[in-house]
Amino acid sequence: MNKFTLLIDCHDQKGIVNAVSGFISENGGNIIDSQQYSLGLSAHFFMRVLVDASEFKIKTEDLDAAFSNIADKFSMSFKFSHHTKRMAILVSKYDHCLYDLLLRKQYGEINVEVPIIISNHLDLKHVATAFNIPFEYYPIERDEYDTNSHYDSKLRQEQRIINRLKELNIELVALARYMQILTPQFINAYPFKIINVHHGFLPSFKGARPYHQAFEKGVKIIGATAHYATEDLDMGPIIEQGVISIDHRDTVEDYISKGRDIEKQVLAKAIKAHAEDKIIVHEGKTLVFD
Amino acid sequence: MNKFTLLIDCHDQKGIVNAVSGFISENGGNIIDSQQYSLGLSAHFFMRVLVDASEFKIKTEDLDAAFSNIADKFSMSFKFSHHTKRMAILVSKYDHCLYDLLLRKQYGEINVEVPIIISNHLDLKHVATAFNIPFEYYPIERDEYDTNSHYDSKLRQEQRIINRLKELNIELVALARYMQILTPQFINAYPFKIINVHHGFLPSFKGARPYHQAFEKGVKIIGATAHYATEDLDMGPIIEQGVISIDHRDTVEDYISKGRDIEKQVLAKAIKAHAEDKIIVHEGKTLVFD
Amino acid sequence: MNKFTLLIDCHDQKGIVNAVSGFISENGGNIIDSQQYSLGLSAHFFMRVLVDASEFKIKTEDLDAAFSNIADKFSMSFKFSHHTKRMAILVSKYDHCLYDLLLRKQYGEINVEVPIIISNHLDLKHVATAFNIPFEYYPIERDEYDTNSHYDSKLRQEQRIINRLKELNIELVALARYMQILTPQFINAYPFKIINVHHGFLPSFKGARPYHQAFEKGVKIIGATAHYATEDLDMGPIIEQGVISIDHRDTVEDYISKGRDIEKQVLAKAIKAHAEDKIIVHEGKTLVFD
Amino acid sequence: MNKFTLLIDCHDQKGIVNAVSGFISENGGNIIDSQQYSLGLSAHFFMRVLVDASEFKIKTEDLDAAFSNIADKFSMSFKFSHHTKRMAILVSKYDHCLYDLLLRKQYGEINVEVPIIISNHLDLKHVATAFNIPFEYYPIERDEYDTNSHYDSKLRQEQRIINRLKELNIELVALARYMQILTPQFINAYPFKIINVHHGFLPSFKGARPYHQAFEKGVKIIGATAHYATEDLDMGPIIEQGVISIDHRDTVEDYISKGRDIEKQVLAKAIKAHAEDKIIVHEGKTLVFD
Repeated sequence: MNKFTLLIDCHDQKGIVNAVSGFISENGGNIIDSQQYSLGLSAHFFMRVLVDASEFKIKTEDLDAAFSNIADKFSMSFKFSHHTKRMAILVSKYDHCLYDLLLRKQYGEINVEVPIIISNHLDLKHVATAFNIPFEYYPIERDEYDTNSHYDSKLRQEQRIINRLKELNIELVALARYMQILTPQFINAYPFKIINVHHGFLPSFKGARPYHQAFEKGVKIIGATAHYATEDLDMGPIIEQGVISIDHRDTVEDYISKGRDIEKQVLAKAIKAHAEDKIIVHEGKTLVFD
Repeated sequence: MNKFTLLIDCHDQKGIVNAVSGFISENGGNIIDSQQYSLGLSAHFFMRVLVDASEFKIKTEDLDAAFSNIADKFSMSFKFSHHTKRMAILVSKYDHCLYDLLLRKQYGEINVEVPIIISNHLDLKHVATAFNIPFEYYPIERDEYDTNSHYDSKLRQEQRIINRLKELNIELVALARYMQILTPQFINAYPFKIINVHHGFLPSFKGARPYHQAFEKGVKIIGATAHYATEDLDMGPIIEQGVISIDHRDTVEDYISKGRDIEKQVLAKAIKAHAEDKIIVHEGKTLVFD
Repeated sequence: MNKFTLLIDCHDQKGIVNAVSGFISENGGNIIDSQQYSLGLSAHFFMRVLVDASEFKIKTEDLDAAFSNIADKFSMSFKFSHHTKRMAILVSKYDHCLYDLLLRKQYGEINVEVPIIISNHLDLKHVATAFNIPFEYYPIERDEYDTNSHYDSKLRQEQRIINRLKELNIELVALARYMQILTPQFINAYPFKIINVHHGFLPSFKGARPYHQAFEKGVKIIGATAHYATEDLDMGPIIEQGVISIDHRDTVEDYISKGRDIEKQVLAKAIKAHAEDKIIVHEGKTLVFD
Repeated sequence: MNKFTLLIDCHDQKGIVNAVSGFISENGGNIIDSQQYSLGLSAHFFMRVLVDASEFKIKTEDLDAAFSNIADKFSMSFKFSHHTKRMAILVSKYDHCLYDLLLRKQYGEINVEVPIIISNHLDLKHVATAFNIPFEYYPIERDEYDTNSHYDSKLRQEQRIINRLKELNIELVALARYMQILTPQFINAYPFKIINVHHGFLPSFKGARPYHQAFEKGVKIIGATAHYATEDLDMGPIIEQGVISIDHRDTVEDYISKGRDIEKQVLAKAIKAHAEDKIIVHEGKTLVFD
């Protein structure tokens, strides 16, 4: 089926739904799913519409222009999406999120194309190979005697990756336990298009070794968080969180083991929501339509 | 705020959303929330709209007539709701669901009026009193030597209850562990307006002593089910289900104890969904909007 | 059944279980349940034994002395418990945790005596009355012009409460949303015997208005934490945590509403575990036997 | 560390724990973990002991004989386990449980050896290859005109598999969505050593197409069940169950998709429990120690 998604946000006003649904029905579309959210007339309004466009009269490339009258009238931000997104997966040495994403893609649960898997290590090349996806290796050259040169090396490595992603028309980047803190140059190349999974229940346990932090604190539930990467480490808009109970018999190794199940689930759910254009970022937080 | 809800179902056709939203905006309403569901143009379509009617031009009593043109055009079933529903609670001797409903009503979580609590026993009169709600006692007179007379007695007791409910303009009946199987005369007096909680994970463990059945079977998770009461015992459309893990150390008494938490939660969620006009029954199953 | 519980912790050594089980079987007891935990011979060892003492030869008052040989040999901390604990409930204006504890006590889920409910407000007197439990009112007298005098007033109020608790032989204090920060004098009068419920998923969202904090941060799961009250606010050993999912449609009021269900559950579980002598505090963390 | 597990069940009597712990400590062992369960002196008693045997004086091959005095005295069933179990995985065309088991084995979560993967189809050979595990293909030859010959063919195929498993000293068989009903000859070759995952919340939805059954019924939660395979289809002792919520928007395909996550988790947990000798089957039900 030929479909498109329309995401809208603007100040709430009377007549928005009618204007949008009128645009769609007058042009031959059928609304398959529609969700909206608002806190009332004085507040912000959010809407997602999924349209069966099999008989739609407006060409894909003309959608934005055709909709501009309505968008102007209501001062809307809006975005039409009409094709499967191209996603790069960045990994380091842990394979669980990578396997999970590739299998869900294979089962049709997550609708993305994955033209490339990128890593700073060679460890997971065999997984890419098994799934017939090109794997590219971008090491960060380390000079043990010079911290600055390390940062420079990282900047150069990132630049090479960014260039490659642009070349491949990548629209979404999954950090599947990539284990590197991205610099602002990378973050800003893909604003709200890089999804990271942090193995802690944010805002608790930011930064390094969150399972060790959780163990020290003696919590009874651990979690993982998928969020958009922003310049503030582990502080970007949260998309999805998951938790699992632990008890006194669990060691940090058990946390890591149980955490794997949660990490891959929250990352997959976040990627799926983004791939289906179900997320709007507003004032540092996400709205995730069902 | 002056609000109303509109529930619609019909065959899916182009232009439904536009027609409905047009009706609302042209008459001065603002859509606060709108959800719809369909499996495509050849399938059934379901919609719920919540409208801010503060400035709505059509009077409540004229809504049905005003909407009839659109309803006829699309062959819709539709229902406007614009006031807080009046609910009766039927109980027997268990108090956990009763307390839970009364407290949630008090907190404003469930928006209903409760003009009466009815029981075939006197045990829970004190709870009704503590919450300042009238309690009425309708015993089933038993003649131990005559089974038929027992059924007759039950029919008479039910008829007295039905009369009282009608007198009080009751629109929704919560069976809060009422422990009596209703006869068809009661069921048919309130079709899809009687909500029961069964202490088993239906369709498993229908009928009597479901926790004992679960114990015998050795399941590892037990559950409870809220459903509309129909003539087929424990077979009415399921509205909400909940579960809890149990293990080999749990006795039937532990199941009963753990089950209480689940029973009251699923009943409360089902009542809340019905009270907010979020449920459509279609072909023996429910759609429950979020 | 005549029963007692024995809680032990010491450095792990060979022969502990054998020594303890020998003490019990030689004196005519039968082990109903036994759990132990250790990280190996170089680490700490924890054990809980529940004993059927119907035919036990040692009198309750002689247990400690009789066990001292074994305890000395292994340098054990140990504690026998043989009666239902006496618990005070402290409340302020929120009733959900209070109702929950009283109902679970009534159902036999939590085995405690509750000789008193104490509050700094009169709002919940009616609940105590409905359950036939004495309610006592200890207001904190406020002098709006003098902050110091407020603290003094609080110290005096606490002292009166402590005196009353001692008089009533209270062994466990449940802070059922008491909404007051206890001073060290109160904390130290009942070390690891005061259980508080915090309406946040600690260590996130300590202090005031945790649901507002969670809303600001945009988390997708909220939680509650039951912990022993210590001098560090919301930093005492965590006993139990629970969570519930929220989404963008939930307001802070919805968090509060959903949170009630979690708060009461975690508090009840923590109280139950303590009442059954299933908790050992070690190095700022808890072991909670199943 | 050199370890062994001891599983015991017998009629409950005084002195069992002391006798068992005495046997262990007198012979130089240290109890790492010990769990027991009983409903009292008149009931059955179950115990699992994990022992650090680094300095144990009795050789592995002499354990049974050395323990026979105690076992006879208490009329115990008992079983020592001291090595990693050898497990065969049987699959058909679905790969999710297979990947999950192989990855958990790789991470060290499940302690088994997997010397062989067996299938009646060739579809998953590539997965076995990617994990460097021998894959063997045992097709069931079908004669479309003769049902009896089909059953005969199946019996022959099974016999070839059984022979191969015996040859490889297989001790545990995982049916990882094998999609074939085993005949009694196979079941009886490995009593309570074949673990199946059924994609329904048993006892609901036994047999074929459980997700379709669940969809027809309109349940709000679906589940999966891991159990020992017995001659009664989907009726063997339940080891583990898991559930996930679904709603009206989910199609049968969504059930299948969501179900995958649950199926693999319950199968993995059941395999892990069996691999660690944590399961005792008693009167058609399982005890699964933590």
